Amino acid sequence: MAKRLMFEKPLGMRDTLPFFYNQKKKARELLTEEISRFGYLFMDTPFLEYYETVGEASATLDQQLFKLLDQQGHSLVLRPDMTAPIARVAASQLKNAEFPLRLAYDGPVFRAQQTEGGKPAQFEQVGTELIGDHSSYGDAEVIALLIRSLQRAGLDDFQITIGHVGYVRCFFKEILGDDPANTEELMSYLYRKNHVGYQEAVRALAVSDEAKRSLMGLMKLRGEDEVFDQSKSLARNQECLQAINELKQLYKMLKQYEVEQYVSFDLNLISHMDYYTGILFEGYAPNLGSLLCNGGRYDKLLPSFQLNASATGFAIRLERLVEALAAQSGEEQRIGILVDDDTFAEGLKQAQDLRSKGKKVLLQHVDQVPDLQQFKAGLAEAIDLTTGGGRDA
Amino acid sequence: MAKRLMFEKPLGMRDTLPFFYNQKKKARELLTEEISRFGYLFMDTPFLEYYETVGEASATLDQQLFKLLDQQGHSLVLRPDMTAPIARVAASQLKNAEFPLRLAYDGPVFRAQQTEGGKPAQFEQVGTELIGDHSSYGDAEVIALLIRSLQRAGLDDFQITIGHVGYVRCFFKEILGDDPANTEELMSYLYRKNHVGYQEAVRALAVSDEAKRSLMGLMKLRGEDEVFDQSKSLARNQECLQAINELKQLYKMLKQYEVEQYVSFDLNLISHMDYYTGILFEGYAPNLGSLLCNGGRYDKLLPSFQLNASATGFAIRLERLVEALAAQSGEEQRIGILVDDDTFAEGLKQAQDLRSKGKKVLLQHVDQVPDLQQFKAGLAEAIDLTTGGGRDA
Repeated sequence: MAKRLMFEKPLGMRDTLPFFYNQKKKARELLTEEISRFGYLFMDTPFLEYYETVGEASATLDQQLFKLLDQQGHSLVLRPDMTAPIARVAASQLKNAEFPLRLAYDGPVFRAQQTEGGKPAQFEQVGTELIGDHSSYGDAEVIALLIRSLQRAGLDDFQITIGHVGYVRCFFKEILGDDPANTEELMSYLYRKNHVGYQEAVRALAVSDEAKRSLMGLMKLRGEDEVFDQSKSLARNQECLQAINELKQLYKMLKQYEVEQYVSFDLNLISHMDYYTGILFEGYAPNLGSLLCNGGRYDKLLPSFQLNASATGFAIRLERLVEALAAQSGEEQRIGILVDDDTFAEGLKQAQDLRSKGKKVLLQHVDQVPDLQQFKAGLAEAIDLTTGGGRDA
Repeated sequence: MAKRLMFEKPLGMRDTLPFFYNQKKKARELLTEEISRFGYLFMDTPFLEYYETVGEASATLDQQLFKLLDQQGHSLVLRPDMTAPIARVAASQLKNAEFPLRLAYDGPVFRAQQTEGGKPAQFEQVGTELIGDHSSYGDAEVIALLIRSLQRAGLDDFQITIGHVGYVRCFFKEILGDDPANTEELMSYLYRKNHVGYQEAVRALAVSDEAKRSLMGLMKLRGEDEVFDQSKSLARNQECLQAINELKQLYKMLKQYEVEQYVSFDLNLISHMDYYTGILFEGYAPNLGSLLCNGGRYDKLLPSFQLNASATGFAIRLERLVEALAAQSGEEQRIGILVDDDTFAEGLKQAQDLRSKGKKVLLQHVDQVPDLQQFKAGLAEAIDLTTGGGRDA
């Protein structure tokens, strides 16, 4: 392998320069403030976890995990998400705390990339976990909080699409019977949002025309709350009706939270092949090509950490939120005071005075500045205390 | 290897529960605010870097690096410090920015631990880099900013010990001549602060009694500015005098910054075997057994990234600062509103009203609470809107 250039970075790794850093900081502060107001407690977990515990419990594909060996020979992973580590803590150090637990987090997670596709291998998530509340009140709170947080960060134009993985599963069960191969194939098309592939697969199935019509009809169960009634013409078994009732109850509460204009329903939404267990959702902003946020109910994760508790939560991808908040500024307004040996004391006095008023002030000896004009151009205001520098102060 | 328990964590990895999370957040906010007021711009770099670039350029021992292979077979490291990554950015994306650069950072760094010694393998650093200013003004600014930041975070009782690695090197050169083996041996005792070992090694040296007296005398060059004069009786070559003059000039400016009560001098201070090149410093708090912060001038690092620029900076270990700030509170003051089906709407209204006033309010359906008494005990205030719940509201 050729020697690397000194300034190269690993695949999918990015620097965060001051402008973007400030934009992220501002968005992060607003999100976390809103989440705190809903009574959620922020916590953090380490960046490295054991592969055979949190690594295997996470919802991330094995090939996307960054794996390493520690000096004792154990296999570790860089945390691919925060939900599994928080489940670990909830099931151990917090198992005697006051349930339901309202926990929140903010930090980077890691997904190894195979190719130079522009996808980041490290990105920041701000999210919540409501653990031990299996009611629709819990589902509604999490979605309402997601919407309020995005609004608080300054985003107005976005849409949260809500589905129910229990509905999809029992729908296929009613139409296809016990047919795991075809069910998994169709679900995997839905998971990849490959609707053309889904329709072709349905056409190729050896089932009745009526069953095919129902399977095709699933594609149409997207929109406002009218989909609840439409769904009944396709599948009417007890479990499907129960799932629709949960969604109806959720929608009623989202109207009480006055956030219904941000939500729509999609009964063929599958966010993950086998992680979520009930209501689930994804959020998009129109000027963003990719997922902004997602979440849902995952009732199987905590039992794998020996805690019998249901859970629901969301995660917002912070860098994408900043992208969606296009017009926001990240420029620091800095005052620069230029001094020489004779005016250092005076400059220091002025700097301290301005700093005590909350201003951002840099104090610089002129001898160390290679290009004075460029230096001043980077400042919101320049105060030149050097001899003869008064001209362009 | 036995199967791991689901809640085990890798060696040296720690969870940050809400109480400590809030303490850290508060300290971090105060530090970063003060650093911003000095005109420093915060930035971030990825957690993974190439081993052969940033990994090798860093000041961290190879055995302390967490190494992994990416999917293309390159050797990566988890960043062991922020100085080398920031040097990489300064020398590439920022090389045409306005110098001197004032950059700052805040984030976790990683050091692999060999044994269960209680040392963290991941810890958070808040720090600065002043790049392209090789004057004493730069040295003074960095130390004054360090002191102001610690004060701002609420720490009153701490001491910054300042040395000069150039002094130590030319001192040994004058006394021992060109004797790299003995010089490195003595410096390595100083680096490990093993003063008994140093004195034993001096006694065993095959040098004149006068030379031994001088080498022993170095141990006494600690204290206030009187050490500058004392040093002259031990070594008086041009380079030593130059180093002492730099320290005198620095001390004069630290008095102008009015921070001299926090500093002392130690002319046998060596913070790292071959990283720093001039003035260097370490900070301690009396109730803390270990280093709180350190820094200094490192003029050889940026040239290794092909940028001909000097640099100086500091790093504060955030978790240790929080430890030193013993009495600080991290408790969230949360109001809890308990509702049932009939009072959900009323509870939501009250919650929204209180949240809009900046209060932290959790809204909880009573059916999901396993232990009502414990749940209420975790709240600063409980508002019980459930039927018959008025009694202990």
